[in-house]
Amino acid sequence: MSRILNYGMVGGGPGAFIGHAHRHSVALDESAKLVAGCFSRDHEKCLRQGEELHLSPDRCYTSYLEMAQKEAAREDGIDFVTVVTPNSSHYEICKAFLEAGIHVACDKPVTVSFAQAQELRDLAREKGLLFMVTYTYTGHVTAKYVGDLVRSGGIGDVRMVMAEYPQGWLAFPENDGGWRSDPAFSGPVNCLGDLGTHVENIIATMTGLKIRRVLAKMDKKVEGHILDDNDSILVEYDTGASGIYWVSQIAVGSDNSLKVRIYGSRGTVLWEQESPEKVTVIDADKTVREIHRGHACVTKHAAGYTRLPAGHPEGWYEAMANLYHSFTACVNAKKDGTFTDDMIDFPTIEDGAHGLAFVEACLKSTENGNTWIPVEA
Amino acid sequence: MSRILNYGMVGGGPGAFIGHAHRHSVALDESAKLVAGCFSRDHEKCLRQGEELHLSPDRCYTSYLEMAQKEAAREDGIDFVTVVTPNSSHYEICKAFLEAGIHVACDKPVTVSFAQAQELRDLAREKGLLFMVTYTYTGHVTAKYVGDLVRSGGIGDVRMVMAEYPQGWLAFPENDGGWRSDPAFSGPVNCLGDLGTHVENIIATMTGLKIRRVLAKMDKKVEGHILDDNDSILVEYDTGASGIYWVSQIAVGSDNSLKVRIYGSRGTVLWEQESPEKVTVIDADKTVREIHRGHACVTKHAAGYTRLPAGHPEGWYEAMANLYHSFTACVNAKKDGTFTDDMIDFPTIEDGAHGLAFVEACLKSTENGNTWIPVEA
Amino acid sequence: MSRILNYGMVGGGPGAFIGHAHRHSVALDESAKLVAGCFSRDHEKCLRQGEELHLSPDRCYTSYLEMAQKEAAREDGIDFVTVVTPNSSHYEICKAFLEAGIHVACDKPVTVSFAQAQELRDLAREKGLLFMVTYTYTGHVTAKYVGDLVRSGGIGDVRMVMAEYPQGWLAFPENDGGWRSDPAFSGPVNCLGDLGTHVENIIATMTGLKIRRVLAKMDKKVEGHILDDNDSILVEYDTGASGIYWVSQIAVGSDNSLKVRIYGSRGTVLWEQESPEKVTVIDADKTVREIHRGHACVTKHAAGYTRLPAGHPEGWYEAMANLYHSFTACVNAKKDGTFTDDMIDFPTIEDGAHGLAFVEACLKSTENGNTWIPVEA
Amino acid sequence: MSRILNYGMVGGGPGAFIGHAHRHSVALDESAKLVAGCFSRDHEKCLRQGEELHLSPDRCYTSYLEMAQKEAAREDGIDFVTVVTPNSSHYEICKAFLEAGIHVACDKPVTVSFAQAQELRDLAREKGLLFMVTYTYTGHVTAKYVGDLVRSGGIGDVRMVMAEYPQGWLAFPENDGGWRSDPAFSGPVNCLGDLGTHVENIIATMTGLKIRRVLAKMDKKVEGHILDDNDSILVEYDTGASGIYWVSQIAVGSDNSLKVRIYGSRGTVLWEQESPEKVTVIDADKTVREIHRGHACVTKHAAGYTRLPAGHPEGWYEAMANLYHSFTACVNAKKDGTFTDDMIDFPTIEDGAHGLAFVEACLKSTENGNTWIPVEA
Repeated sequence: MSRILNYGMVGGGPGAFIGHAHRHSVALDESAKLVAGCFSRDHEKCLRQGEELHLSPDRCYTSYLEMAQKEAAREDGIDFVTVVTPNSSHYEICKAFLEAGIHVACDKPVTVSFAQAQELRDLAREKGLLFMVTYTYTGHVTAKYVGDLVRSGGIGDVRMVMAEYPQGWLAFPENDGGWRSDPAFSGPVNCLGDLGTHVENIIATMTGLKIRRVLAKMDKKVEGHILDDNDSILVEYDTGASGIYWVSQIAVGSDNSLKVRIYGSRGTVLWEQESPEKVTVIDADKTVREIHRGHACVTKHAAGYTRLPAGHPEGWYEAMANLYHSFTACVNAKKDGTFTDDMIDFPTIEDGAHGLAFVEACLKSTENGNTWIPVEA
Repeated sequence: MSRILNYGMVGGGPGAFIGHAHRHSVALDESAKLVAGCFSRDHEKCLRQGEELHLSPDRCYTSYLEMAQKEAAREDGIDFVTVVTPNSSHYEICKAFLEAGIHVACDKPVTVSFAQAQELRDLAREKGLLFMVTYTYTGHVTAKYVGDLVRSGGIGDVRMVMAEYPQGWLAFPENDGGWRSDPAFSGPVNCLGDLGTHVENIIATMTGLKIRRVLAKMDKKVEGHILDDNDSILVEYDTGASGIYWVSQIAVGSDNSLKVRIYGSRGTVLWEQESPEKVTVIDADKTVREIHRGHACVTKHAAGYTRLPAGHPEGWYEAMANLYHSFTACVNAKKDGTFTDDMIDFPTIEDGAHGLAFVEACLKSTENGNTWIPVEA
Repeated sequence: MSRILNYGMVGGGPGAFIGHAHRHSVALDESAKLVAGCFSRDHEKCLRQGEELHLSPDRCYTSYLEMAQKEAAREDGIDFVTVVTPNSSHYEICKAFLEAGIHVACDKPVTVSFAQAQELRDLAREKGLLFMVTYTYTGHVTAKYVGDLVRSGGIGDVRMVMAEYPQGWLAFPENDGGWRSDPAFSGPVNCLGDLGTHVENIIATMTGLKIRRVLAKMDKKVEGHILDDNDSILVEYDTGASGIYWVSQIAVGSDNSLKVRIYGSRGTVLWEQESPEKVTVIDADKTVREIHRGHACVTKHAAGYTRLPAGHPEGWYEAMANLYHSFTACVNAKKDGTFTDDMIDFPTIEDGAHGLAFVEACLKSTENGNTWIPVEA
Repeated sequence: MSRILNYGMVGGGPGAFIGHAHRHSVALDESAKLVAGCFSRDHEKCLRQGEELHLSPDRCYTSYLEMAQKEAAREDGIDFVTVVTPNSSHYEICKAFLEAGIHVACDKPVTVSFAQAQELRDLAREKGLLFMVTYTYTGHVTAKYVGDLVRSGGIGDVRMVMAEYPQGWLAFPENDGGWRSDPAFSGPVNCLGDLGTHVENIIATMTGLKIRRVLAKMDKKVEGHILDDNDSILVEYDTGASGIYWVSQIAVGSDNSLKVRIYGSRGTVLWEQESPEKVTVIDADKTVREIHRGHACVTKHAAGYTRLPAGHPEGWYEAMANLYHSFTACVNAKKDGTFTDDMIDFPTIEDGAHGLAFVEACLKSTENGNTWIPVEA
């Protein structure tokens, strides 16, 4: 039977958007209750955030290590932790909770190096723990439908993928980009880590294709940027299919314009994150079909995540909630001993590690003057 | 200081969409906790729903009267009740809770007659209780922005309003429409009550215009329909402005296509419920501007309800949650003694009563052979 | 065999948009050559326009009567005349050419009264002459496709029609509207004649429905307007189907936004004049299909008018040219003695007369305080 | 003074789309009259086409050389020739007419090698003859507006260009692609020549940027294709700006989806060939403005080509006609001795030569395993 789980959060202090967003998404299903947190290294801030969230002060920690150990020791300790700190700290925090035997949900990119991600992946496997990487966009009902359609051969063999994620917020020198533009917190990449990994993940999830090699040109378009802000990437998949990925933070006017176009031998599918209520499918006879989230033609698997009738828009929270929906069901199944691998319908540490392998290949390609670099499996 | 309120629900038993939807919307803000319910007249169903929602069995009632009285008597009784039953029972249920001194949030249309709505309005005023009618769509950030723009003269004097809400679910005789098509539960109208009141309310909210008179033609297009399923309404506002409202349940392929177009002497504004992330404003010089929920050009009042950055879609839950956001803040203020009328930023029983006055005028117009009928204030 | 016809033009002097437009449309097919004209009552202007169009000066007339008689008398006289003068002069000009035995193409509305239109209709019948009224929009390939689809039952029985044609050019008092706003040239209506007849005609053409009665509210929204500038019309067809027509000249930002939505018992079809390259069809199972002008799914009849491959946009000229395509083929067939009625695929004087009957019923309804008025057959 | 010019056509025999299209476009302005043609090497076909076009049989030639010489010798010989044969024959035909002293309009790509294009360029310069290469899309009013906006700094410095032209007609092995897929007629490239040169040209025209180097991956996705059918190209401009060009013939469902997105330091502009009536401009403050062809905000230069009011769609013919509008004005000015270089507002042989330099650099890059190759000036 499904119980309300207890969970903790590391990061997400006062004013942090992403912590707030995770909490709201979990709240949609009421499947887990926030009971512990390490919201800030500053004890006062941590307590203030905890109070606002109605937490007991003794479960507001200023050290994630202390939190991992004390929560692991409690009878009513957290069932899982959500990690929403800047990228460079993910590795050590996730490692601490895995070592304490606690399931982990971590924001993406999961680490700042492929080696770190591999280590976490191996540790999670060894401990038998669940590890979700919250690539939110894959949670949309329509994204799941695209995956079902493409992976079942609905558009024939994939020949060409056009995928992009432009943003515009770093187009102007007066915006310094905060921690994301600072290698100390963000690691060796900015745009590619923040946006490129989303593109890599959603295409992998939707198509099942493995990237064989990449050829990347990573630009710094705005004066003062130390890290990349505009990346053009040619992709070759193991089937021989081709892809172009473009991610940018300097595309004035773009918000979160993740767009996916997958061209197969028998059809085409188009999906846009900012309009997640619909998918466009074009058949071989050129019929353009617009398929809505709530309509009967969506696959049963994808439709299972629908919360509202067609025409009453769902959005980003529901996509994130859908990830937690599967994750918390799996955590519950772990507790009950009923867990099986095929229950997993969320991005895992394996996916997170692929993202880092992709990032490192792109970096190397750029350093080599834009040559083809294999992506490690 | 803001506390987590306790609330109860009447209706919303197993499988009921609307109860589920209200609970999810409240959960988004974590401003209120469901602690009591009268989910069904069938005790077993009521208990089952209560258990699923982690309620104490002694607060699962099968009589709303008993619930109103017992909860009013408890120290930790509910601060407000949410009523999500079929239309014809709203009146008696709301009345019971108002008489017990409990604030009310009720689904729309608030009653099945103008007289009932007036009675509830007067009772709420007399008792000093808050009464929200959940016209969800007015909660969208963009809908609030349209209201701010139009009511402040941003498009000049309103001259013409085109508003419509077509659905298609009753287009086929094999769908009998459930309780909505049954006068015993739905009252004297189906389409006009379910959809027409939404149109009436959102235009009133956005423009501030009062309807002087209506000329309505209410159709029954599908064989077997006892109540209206397609309504065409000419509207004259007290300023002399004109309007056309069209609502339908037989528009094949339409889901919840509430669309509003307001034409002023200096500009035009377009808004669609199914694409609530944006508003289109056309200036006198024909510049077409697309304004997104999360952008800086939105008014401060509307932007205050934004939860996610532009490009990460918000949807129907957030719109409903925005109503509860203001409502629960007002309930808290009532408890603290800090409440003032200008804090109300949600549809009230006054708005609900206007909806019923509109419905009754349309009915009379149709009975008279489509003549102009004044709408009571 | 098809020959190049000779044609003349009345109206269309220097700077007149509509004369230019007719000439360009005819030129697309090279099926007729302009050889005579009465472009202006001012002889100098007439000659200037004739010279620019490479006409012989002796075929530049300043009297349409002289033109009709002299051209009728010539061996190489015009095969047809195109009349593009202000509305109030159509009647006498068309009559003169019909009496001279010359086929007529006339701009819409064909006359300013139903009686005049009936007289022209009867005269054309009696003389065995062709009379085209250039309701341009029906010439679009996609408009023809919609007609083929709807009239063959492709969306089941039509239940509801939503049709509108808003413009914005008269929204501001500083634009006096020229001759269209002057009863002396425009007749008793402005907006209804200029836009309303387009709506009436395209719906009649697409659906084959006859209007049984109308209920109209004709507004004058802008100070200084003597004629209507915003009209709301309830329509009842002889099958019992319902319709709402809205036409306006005060909808700020609208150019020529003729939009048609036809809801049937088994499907829905959407068409917009400003996006004539596509039609949207929604099936009973809610599949939304976007059908492009050049695609295989368009009917053979409609596809026969396609000039460019899909994706290379056709526009307004092609729509007008399509009318002339059928009209000149019919004129040629008349000359060859091979003409049959089923060759007609353009709007005729019968359609033009229906338009006037519709206009007069709407006027009467408005005068009566917005009551139902039958439309004469 | 402007006279009606005489022109001839090489290619464009019975059933050939492109010849038909050029003739229609010229006809729109009535600025030139077709008087001679070499429509086919087959004399009977040539005569048949000539008869259909009302040409004198003695000006229907089966040898372009004979046509060039005889027309050059006539008092009333053609003022210019339009060449619409398969790519590989352009060079020799254009050369013959240039040598005969006749102005040339030729379809694109102008030749199958950069060397040929240079030779034609030099010959035209030497002879003082006009040479238009009909990159149709640059003729759209909105395309001209984009150029005016971008080249005048309206979006700041261009940083990133995303341009693509997918088609789908060669996605299926059963379509052999005709002459375009045959190196003997098409030269060494198919997709890149047919579509890639359009992308190269429109970006050069709109931005004024010169390409410094390209990195191309040219694919053959469909079994049986000898030439490229899907090309991914990274572009570096001489300013340091970046670009991605994608062209494809295997994108199921795409017709002629040429799309341009230009991202500058202060704004963004979006343009699509299939929706040529509008341009989207996004300002630094994120205001999204939709600008229509016929509106006042379009530059005077671009607006000068508008033929129809806003809301009455123009299309592909008008774009082509706009090229001929400037070209025939220049030919007339050459005859009058009033020609100056700044009168040229159409793509020239210089632009055509750039296209071939681009093609050859892409070919070399692909042969080299996708390395950067400079593009010759």
